[in-house]
Amino acid sequence: MGEFDFITHYFGGAETGSAVALGVGDDCALLAPAAGQQLAVTSDALVQGVHFFADVPPDALGHKALAVNLSDLAACGAAPLAFTLALALPPELAQNDAWMRAFAGGLLACAREHGCPLVGGDTTASPVLTISITALGTVPPAQALRRDGAHAGDEVWVSGTLGDARLALGALQGRWTLPPAVLATARARLERPAPRLALGQALRGVASACIDISDGLAGDLGHILRASGVGACLDAAALAACLAARAALQPWPQNCPSALQLALAGGDDYELAFTAPPAAREKVLAAAQQAGCAVHCIGTIEASCGLRLRHADGRTEETPAHAFEHF
Amino acid sequence: MGEFDFITHYFGGAETGSAVALGVGDDCALLAPAAGQQLAVTSDALVQGVHFFADVPPDALGHKALAVNLSDLAACGAAPLAFTLALALPPELAQNDAWMRAFAGGLLACAREHGCPLVGGDTTASPVLTISITALGTVPPAQALRRDGAHAGDEVWVSGTLGDARLALGALQGRWTLPPAVLATARARLERPAPRLALGQALRGVASACIDISDGLAGDLGHILRASGVGACLDAAALAACLAARAALQPWPQNCPSALQLALAGGDDYELAFTAPPAAREKVLAAAQQAGCAVHCIGTIEASCGLRLRHADGRTEETPAHAFEHF
Repeated sequence: MGEFDFITHYFGGAETGSAVALGVGDDCALLAPAAGQQLAVTSDALVQGVHFFADVPPDALGHKALAVNLSDLAACGAAPLAFTLALALPPELAQNDAWMRAFAGGLLACAREHGCPLVGGDTTASPVLTISITALGTVPPAQALRRDGAHAGDEVWVSGTLGDARLALGALQGRWTLPPAVLATARARLERPAPRLALGQALRGVASACIDISDGLAGDLGHILRASGVGACLDAAALAACLAARAALQPWPQNCPSALQLALAGGDDYELAFTAPPAAREKVLAAAQQAGCAVHCIGTIEASCGLRLRHADGRTEETPAHAFEHF
Repeated sequence: MGEFDFITHYFGGAETGSAVALGVGDDCALLAPAAGQQLAVTSDALVQGVHFFADVPPDALGHKALAVNLSDLAACGAAPLAFTLALALPPELAQNDAWMRAFAGGLLACAREHGCPLVGGDTTASPVLTISITALGTVPPAQALRRDGAHAGDEVWVSGTLGDARLALGALQGRWTLPPAVLATARARLERPAPRLALGQALRGVASACIDISDGLAGDLGHILRASGVGACLDAAALAACLAARAALQPWPQNCPSALQLALAGGDDYELAFTAPPAAREKVLAAAQQAGCAVHCIGTIEASCGLRLRHADGRTEETPAHAFEHF
């Protein structure tokens, strides 16, 4: 099967959207976004052995490869337009029909769910499976959510739950043991993150700054703090409560970090962290309700740089606002 | 150095264009393309050991990684807008400051030369160097050059020279030997392809179909033939004359394919192959002159499917219209 037939065979089921003038199969795709919109562009790559295990279910991998890019669109408040896929494949996977079907199925199901059609890309041989996706979205001019708009006095919010993906990762790596039901729920968070697209769009004009949490809250909130020239103090109890599995873990698994540590530095959450003035609290809650997504206020932006935790006993401590470093 | 600092350090010199509302450093880049334009999107990945040798000069690699994507924009008649970079890097390269500077230098020089600013991307660790680029361009509605517009009677044209990149590749692989001056010229074609952006834009409204030649003329012209439901007959002598090094190779190197074979199936040319009605010949030549790029008429589109070569003695033979297959 030639490269062209290969792409059509597995990815030919990509639905085209109303903004797609020409989809997969020419030198370029042609898009006609609605007039007057700005274009949001993001690229994220997943590499085998770095971002996922070789034995990850292929449909989950297809889902996640797109979802992490849609999460970046969500963080900007953009609506999905289309995406491209550069797939570097070991020959044994390219020849594994069941694997390819499942991977394409997971990817295209996520694309359909979020109205983001596959419009082009590249398939090539490689010793290491590498999935590079570029997602495009649209956002009204000057309404994109950015990292640099947080002000002292703003409240710090997060969507959904935090730390459960990291909880599953450690269990899959054999570092600690989880009850089967807890592992199943946490693993779904690791393997099938839900990009918060509706929430991001509902927060336009409401949030002062926004980012998606891919490398852990501390590091990603740190990007907001540095870009905005501010600091933050987070409520340790409110943060620990963001771990969905917390109540179910009695006793606490041996060798497993605390709920606070998992929520603060876990990574792979793909929730939104955002800031908004206290006066916008009702609008934040209305946006969350409209998007069908829970949000939690976990702290306050302060003029003084750095990231601090306030514990139940009133004690505060500095904590590093840095993310996972690849090199 | 964290990932964020790493990107700023090496790629912070990316110039922003007038259409860039927000560049590198947020979840998404924000672009404001000119109103009323369609958006052309293309993704191409280069993988070490598949598309380039480990010892390729890093500045040439940076140039080529972007140039092959710009060549796809050229084939659509699009003007460059911006690009994203997903860089999967072995740690020893990430820590090799001279290599990183040269790679970024070659990439950003190509970006400046063609007015296509780097606006975002992703850097990650990987055992295999993989460079995935997505380039965006703009094209007036319904004016994009496509693969499916060739008609029987149209003439077949190519830009520049063909086969020289393949000539250099074989020499670098030790399959044949070239005089040093010939190797230097051919190697520049392999390592520093020039995307034919001006020609592609000048051919809007003139060419009936267009593609860029990345996998060899036979295979890429084959895409036009299949998409358009036609065939072609090429003049073997005119095609052989497309190899720039031909006159300098006396005697012909041992084990080296003929000039005709190199031009027909060499690959890595990044020239444009296009079709146009004979009545448009003057406009084709005017477009080439305006773009400062030589073009050659090498054959004719025919109603009968398949690809044929007509030799000097009048004999015609069928030849496969298929490209390099990755799997």
